[in-house]
Amino acid sequence: MEFSHELRRQVDRIERGLDELLPGASERPSRLHEAIRYSISSGGKRLRPVLVLATVDLFKPATAVDGLPAAIAIECLHTYSLIHDDLPCMDNDDLRRGRPTVHKAFDEATALLAGDALLTHAFSLLAVHYASNPALATALIHELADAAGSRRLIGGQMEDLLAEKNASTSAADLNFIHLNKTAAMIEAALVLGGLIGDATEPQVQALRSTGRHLGLAFQIMDDVLDATGSSSTLGKTAGKDAKANKATFVRLHGLEASRRLANEYTEQAKAALSTLDGDKAFLTALIDSMANRIR
Amino acid sequence: MEFSHELRRQVDRIERGLDELLPGASERPSRLHEAIRYSISSGGKRLRPVLVLATVDLFKPATAVDGLPAAIAIECLHTYSLIHDDLPCMDNDDLRRGRPTVHKAFDEATALLAGDALLTHAFSLLAVHYASNPALATALIHELADAAGSRRLIGGQMEDLLAEKNASTSAADLNFIHLNKTAAMIEAALVLGGLIGDATEPQVQALRSTGRHLGLAFQIMDDVLDATGSSSTLGKTAGKDAKANKATFVRLHGLEASRRLANEYTEQAKAALSTLDGDKAFLTALIDSMANRIR
Repeated sequence: MEFSHELRRQVDRIERGLDELLPGASERPSRLHEAIRYSISSGGKRLRPVLVLATVDLFKPATAVDGLPAAIAIECLHTYSLIHDDLPCMDNDDLRRGRPTVHKAFDEATALLAGDALLTHAFSLLAVHYASNPALATALIHELADAAGSRRLIGGQMEDLLAEKNASTSAADLNFIHLNKTAAMIEAALVLGGLIGDATEPQVQALRSTGRHLGLAFQIMDDVLDATGSSSTLGKTAGKDAKANKATFVRLHGLEASRRLANEYTEQAKAALSTLDGDKAFLTALIDSMANRIR
Repeated sequence: MEFSHELRRQVDRIERGLDELLPGASERPSRLHEAIRYSISSGGKRLRPVLVLATVDLFKPATAVDGLPAAIAIECLHTYSLIHDDLPCMDNDDLRRGRPTVHKAFDEATALLAGDALLTHAFSLLAVHYASNPALATALIHELADAAGSRRLIGGQMEDLLAEKNASTSAADLNFIHLNKTAAMIEAALVLGGLIGDATEPQVQALRSTGRHLGLAFQIMDDVLDATGSSSTLGKTAGKDAKANKATFVRLHGLEASRRLANEYTEQAKAALSTLDGDKAFLTALIDSMANRIR
């Protein structure tokens, strides 16, 4: 297996799935559906949906259950969180992956509603496309709603905003933020893939641990990139964290310690994954590429 | 059955359910959970969740499946839509049921996230509490996600905002807005109740028609109240629609024709309901009270 070739194949599947599984831009109200399509076709790396598909493949290379709708659901959810995070009352960002953010390209109300619609659509996709296996559908929705809820994704975003106003963010606070704002959705991607692959409970726990550690490594490297990279590498405005007085690993621990911690978390992610059977070459390479984006 | 007594009993059940089925205000992040509790304990009339419970009772007075989690889910979804509608980039309302709106009592970012969390929690409640009957859980989530999605609730809100900027809103446009912004969630309340009560497909269709017509009557009376009532009767700022250049039935058709149309829709709602068996006294009285709020 050649990693970049397999990655390209999975991303192509996801791009086609996004096109098929989202409402058409001409559907009423067209302005809303145009904004949804604009936000989702932003040239993102599709890492979370690729994680879903790769995990399904790990368990059942020729599975009867298609992982694609779940992969699209998690990308819808991720995109909603970016649209709302970029709004003026939140991070107030004008650029996302080198293009105007949704509220800049459209307006704030349209961006708010496009985010709401993508969040809702994620659950719709799971309920509709896994309806023939309702126990699976219910488990997927439960997992995604927990990961996206007020105790995890939204809670992490809330604590992140509160930390900006707080001069003394502790290492424990920062861990809460990263564990929930970033790691929750990466963890959910692996768990959804496992559920679709009919993983046992201990296997799901191993996937959860893999996702959690990968998510923490990924967020720390994001902080490192923000402090050292350029806007074009990062696809968003670099140096913004320091300017916004964001709580980051780099600010708390310095660059060297941050890099070291990211490496440790990456090794822990791979160790958790190694307890599972099956061909893990692609997933392992994907973890390495996510955790080592600038090396 | 005495209507007001039975209504009180159902509302009390719902208030207790809300208290039990939402995260505690002290859970981390407490500011977020406080805002959620603030928004949901606003003294609303709980009409949508009462519709769920009353419809369940219509089919199975002693049903084995509890309608309460679905009732709470629909109230969470309704409350999210109010929080987001009140935001400055949307209707920019400072008052809701006589109290400061969430972004006034807290701040915009917290209001945005509290709405996101309530939307997510609605789906979580359905997935968790109906997990022992996953086919039902999946059907409930499918119905709610459709009603709340970009083609219905969110689409109606989008068209409503667009209509403010458009001097010539047609009767057809206004019907689209009311059918989706208001009627979708009232329709969903009756359908969720029917699904929990194990209604047949024709029975679900009768409930859908009941809810749709009731929703249209309800919205027209809301327009009438906004044009004629005081802020205290309405529980929000009266006269706001005209000021915001809102497309309303009253503006398009006048007061008398609006009242007549509301009556017609109410009769159609009751006609659709009358095709169903069971004790419809409470539901019929509820429809009358919803459609005739000032008479």
